[in-house]
Amino acid sequence: MSIKLYELAGANDQRFSPYCWRTRMALAHKGLEVNTHGVNFIDISKIESGEFHTVPIINDNGTSLNDSFAIAEYLEKTYADAPSLFGSPDGLIYARFMQAWANSVLHFDIVCMLIKDIHDLLTPDDQIYFRQSREKRFGKTLEQIQEGREERREDFRARLTPVRLLLASQPFLGGTEPRYADYILFGTLQWANISSTFTLLEKTDPINEWFERCLDLHGSIGRAATT
Amino acid sequence: MSIKLYELAGANDQRFSPYCWRTRMALAHKGLEVNTHGVNFIDISKIESGEFHTVPIINDNGTSLNDSFAIAEYLEKTYADAPSLFGSPDGLIYARFMQAWANSVLHFDIVCMLIKDIHDLLTPDDQIYFRQSREKRFGKTLEQIQEGREERREDFRARLTPVRLLLASQPFLGGTEPRYADYILFGTLQWANISSTFTLLEKTDPINEWFERCLDLHGSIGRAATT
Repeated sequence: MSIKLYELAGANDQRFSPYCWRTRMALAHKGLEVNTHGVNFIDISKIESGEFHTVPIINDNGTSLNDSFAIAEYLEKTYADAPSLFGSPDGLIYARFMQAWANSVLHFDIVCMLIKDIHDLLTPDDQIYFRQSREKRFGKTLEQIQEGREERREDFRARLTPVRLLLASQPFLGGTEPRYADYILFGTLQWANISSTFTLLEKTDPINEWFERCLDLHGSIGRAATT
Repeated sequence: MSIKLYELAGANDQRFSPYCWRTRMALAHKGLEVNTHGVNFIDISKIESGEFHTVPIINDNGTSLNDSFAIAEYLEKTYADAPSLFGSPDGLIYARFMQAWANSVLHFDIVCMLIKDIHDLLTPDDQIYFRQSREKRFGKTLEQIQEGREERREDFRARLTPVRLLLASQPFLGGTEPRYADYILFGTLQWANISSTFTLLEKTDPINEWFERCLDLHGSIGRAATT
């Protein structure tokens, strides 16, 4: 039986959430059959038993859970014979640190550069929810938050230096093969890739080359979503 | 036979280098007997065969090498039966990422907050070298670089958020026990701790509590150096 995966979706069913991409890649890494369902922001609390307030949410033969990292840990434990997401207990800690870094450092920058573009791809009802909640949080309009992003892009690129240093000695963040650490940063950059035409990285950036390698993984599911 | 370790030293033999602290802790973690030698900046190229331009440098029964990470890898391989510094190949990658992040993100902030204090603890000849080389690199006087550090401290604290998130679920960056990942950040903060009375972290910061735990490790060698 395939696993049900609920993902955030835009008005044209664009799957743009960084967290949902992490889960999608984790499921593919484990070779599991998946049935994805797009959901809008305002409908998340209606999914499954209604106990979850964020996606991704999976339902694996009656077991439902959310939170992309919790799902990765669940998959690693439940499908222990399939290719490993973490490699070892140290790999799990590494992925935890990578997630803490990506979420706390990179996501804020990306939101500030793409928030209006993200708004524009949502359904009309989600646009109302998104604008109200985000403008309240920032104390600014979406347009004001996004303004001047060209000048802020260099700072964002500089913040990725640790990844660039790592990729100088290995093809994937996980080492010679991709691991969940890769899917964390992949989700972050795929979010930007799907939400906007604004280019975050330079074409010749080694991180861009790594991102292209990730788009090719698991039957190019990342690439298929952008075409 | 004990291992010879050359470390940067101040006028009063203060051992303040972040990289040397990483190596000192790695040697202690392996339970190896060490003979430390303080060296000034201007004398580094006279050590051993003169082929090295940075410390730490170790000489292990005739084998001499420098670069703290290379030394950690050498110790892990050579003393494979002693407690592991990385735990696994994934732990090695994790440490690489931790180092890339600490060196590229945190060290610049710390230099900009403490550069004059570091200068002040050096020998007169090292002070001349240090002032000339650093002022040329920054295009500013040491005093100008350090100026306004109180205002920049908050940004530095914010940059440590990923570590704070990690320490919320485990006592050491390595997990339940310290690993080389811990010694990387420990070296970074011990550098500040030994070089200056300027307090980087709030007392109640969980990172400060973790730092205190690290000071207690291996016969409190980190604590002994500050008293």
